[in-house]
Amino acid sequence: MRIAQVAPLYESVPPLLYGGTERVVSYLTEELVSLGHEVTLFASGDSHTRAKLVPACPEALWRDPKCHETLPQHVRLMQLVFDDVSRFDVIHFHCDYLQFPMLRLCPCRSITTIHGRLYTPDLKGLFEEYSEVPLVSISDSQREPMPNANWQGTVYHGLPRSLHTFRNGEGGYLAFLGRISPEKRLDRAIEIARRSRWKLKVAAKIYPEDRTYFTEVIQPLMQEAESFVEFIGEVGGREKDEFLGNASALLFPIDWPEPFGLVMIEALACGTPVIAWRCGSVPEVISDGVTGFIVDDVEQAVHAVSRIGSLRREACRSAFEARFDAARMAHDYVEIYRRLQYNGPESASIHVVQRQAPTIGIGFARPKLRRSRAALLGDVPGIA
Amino acid sequence: MRIAQVAPLYESVPPLLYGGTERVVSYLTEELVSLGHEVTLFASGDSHTRAKLVPACPEALWRDPKCHETLPQHVRLMQLVFDDVSRFDVIHFHCDYLQFPMLRLCPCRSITTIHGRLYTPDLKGLFEEYSEVPLVSISDSQREPMPNANWQGTVYHGLPRSLHTFRNGEGGYLAFLGRISPEKRLDRAIEIARRSRWKLKVAAKIYPEDRTYFTEVIQPLMQEAESFVEFIGEVGGREKDEFLGNASALLFPIDWPEPFGLVMIEALACGTPVIAWRCGSVPEVISDGVTGFIVDDVEQAVHAVSRIGSLRREACRSAFEARFDAARMAHDYVEIYRRLQYNGPESASIHVVQRQAPTIGIGFARPKLRRSRAALLGDVPGIA
Repeated sequence: MRIAQVAPLYESVPPLLYGGTERVVSYLTEELVSLGHEVTLFASGDSHTRAKLVPACPEALWRDPKCHETLPQHVRLMQLVFDDVSRFDVIHFHCDYLQFPMLRLCPCRSITTIHGRLYTPDLKGLFEEYSEVPLVSISDSQREPMPNANWQGTVYHGLPRSLHTFRNGEGGYLAFLGRISPEKRLDRAIEIARRSRWKLKVAAKIYPEDRTYFTEVIQPLMQEAESFVEFIGEVGGREKDEFLGNASALLFPIDWPEPFGLVMIEALACGTPVIAWRCGSVPEVISDGVTGFIVDDVEQAVHAVSRIGSLRREACRSAFEARFDAARMAHDYVEIYRRLQYNGPESASIHVVQRQAPTIGIGFARPKLRRSRAALLGDVPGIA
Repeated sequence: MRIAQVAPLYESVPPLLYGGTERVVSYLTEELVSLGHEVTLFASGDSHTRAKLVPACPEALWRDPKCHETLPQHVRLMQLVFDDVSRFDVIHFHCDYLQFPMLRLCPCRSITTIHGRLYTPDLKGLFEEYSEVPLVSISDSQREPMPNANWQGTVYHGLPRSLHTFRNGEGGYLAFLGRISPEKRLDRAIEIARRSRWKLKVAAKIYPEDRTYFTEVIQPLMQEAESFVEFIGEVGGREKDEFLGNASALLFPIDWPEPFGLVMIEALACGTPVIAWRCGSVPEVISDGVTGFIVDDVEQAVHAVSRIGSLRREACRSAFEARFDAARMAHDYVEIYRRLQYNGPESASIHVVQRQAPTIGIGFARPKLRRSRAALLGDVPGIA
């Protein structure tokens, strides 16, 4: 199949360190190449891939000190894709919604994976306008704000099997990995470590917008807790592998509806169980009592830490291999691509919604033709 | 003529207080209605106009506390416009560049006024890609980073004649009006006031991103200078009119290539001369020694303050009426619309650039058909 993967341009594919979406796009792209597909990757020019790379900008935008505004490059990215859609059997977008108006004007077989949270005050109007655009969710929980959007399936993220090393977690510490922002609740992780008398190692990137939160809230907590909390900054590659694999457990005390939570499956790949808040995708990713514990408060988290030895690290690795490896992710997506592709010769027309000429002045009231793929194809359950 | 005006959605049209672009769109729209055109205004739903309003969102996005991301609403705005371009003889965009890819797919007569600074590291690639899109600059200076773009003319901003009141400037103070950000150089204004022993009144909005600069740099300066500097916050309407009209001079000590500088013509409309740095549009807007003084350093600015009584306030108002009233702006734009419109029956095709099917993998090198309107129409000088 001739497949285009369209990545965001913030980080390279794969990214140097953090950059969840770009990382997933990289794993998917390489797996699709391995499966024999003809894959074209639209990404920043410093990306590395076995697919054909179409560089949409010379350098990842967040790594380019001259870049102040990222939108122009993404608009240009769209042009590179839509210049000739006949090159591809399917175009897979990973960069939000800029393609929606283009898809209506330029019919093609497409699928868009939503990687972020669906914050309805900002997004509802847009997604209702483009209700014909086929979407994939990265957890069932992610769909909740817009359950009736044109979902084609849920595809959980996956990692290459060889990426992480199974380890015995004998470092004797709890791990926290993620950006330092209020919804990630590093403060809870520190409190859990304090009350369970464990060492906590924190690997985290501080984004400019979180700098104030870090200096005003987190830094004082860390200073107070310096006897048992160690801050090691941003980690990647082998360092990250060791950081996760040597931990007794990963703490994931989130306070927001995390759409997926890549770090949970990275920990599982190392054999490291996860103590996570019942929030967002967590109940879909973690099997309570098998690959970790799902908790509702700090009390329960402290109790979970005390029982962490009762979990088998092999079970974590097995769950990772069965449910969260990149090959499974690629197969799931190919299944969705095929459903898009083998929908008969008239299938292209499903993207061309006939619209009534709208009456000026009633922008909110004009009639909308809502025609979901589910209605055309029969019900399409989540396939993961 | 059936004219669409497409405003940004950050503030209403007109805005409650600040919001330069939305204000200019409002003045232009109302003037075009007065001239008898059939005008449709795409703007936030809380806008007020005698044109037909197409509300693209219920409320101005910067006034909506639930709005975290402004892009989705602007993408949807584009859809509202491009749903049926045959409704309009010309579509006039004021919201950057989101329409560029749509214009290529959906030919129509359009003009885009660039309201901001052309920061080439971000914008050059995009503007080169869409070299067929007709543009208007708001000063000749604004074009400098991209002199070869498809400029159709420079149209200076204009204000309704009745908006401001001619006053005698007997308040006995210097005025500073604008956002408090490093490039506006309020620090210079304070220094000028100190050295010339004048009172300085500061009317300014502090945007969240400038908060640190305000507290760390400006606030200490203001405290030190509290005997001669008065901070009065954000002003609008009659308060602003009095603030500008009662001032002996407006200080405009900018340190960046300001594309236009609306506050300069607001001051002139009140009869208030402007002491401005030789930067950006300043030499195009201010006549040195007639409507103000153009200076290169604080020394010269202090000297200019001492000579401010030598300028006739009537000359400032006359210059405003001759060069910067809204009727002149509307006529300039109509002239440009007509040139677009009366370009013969084949004119629509100038927006449809035949493109070679690009070769995958050479995103930066693929041949580009650069066909400027200037080449088709003969040279089009700036008309203002």
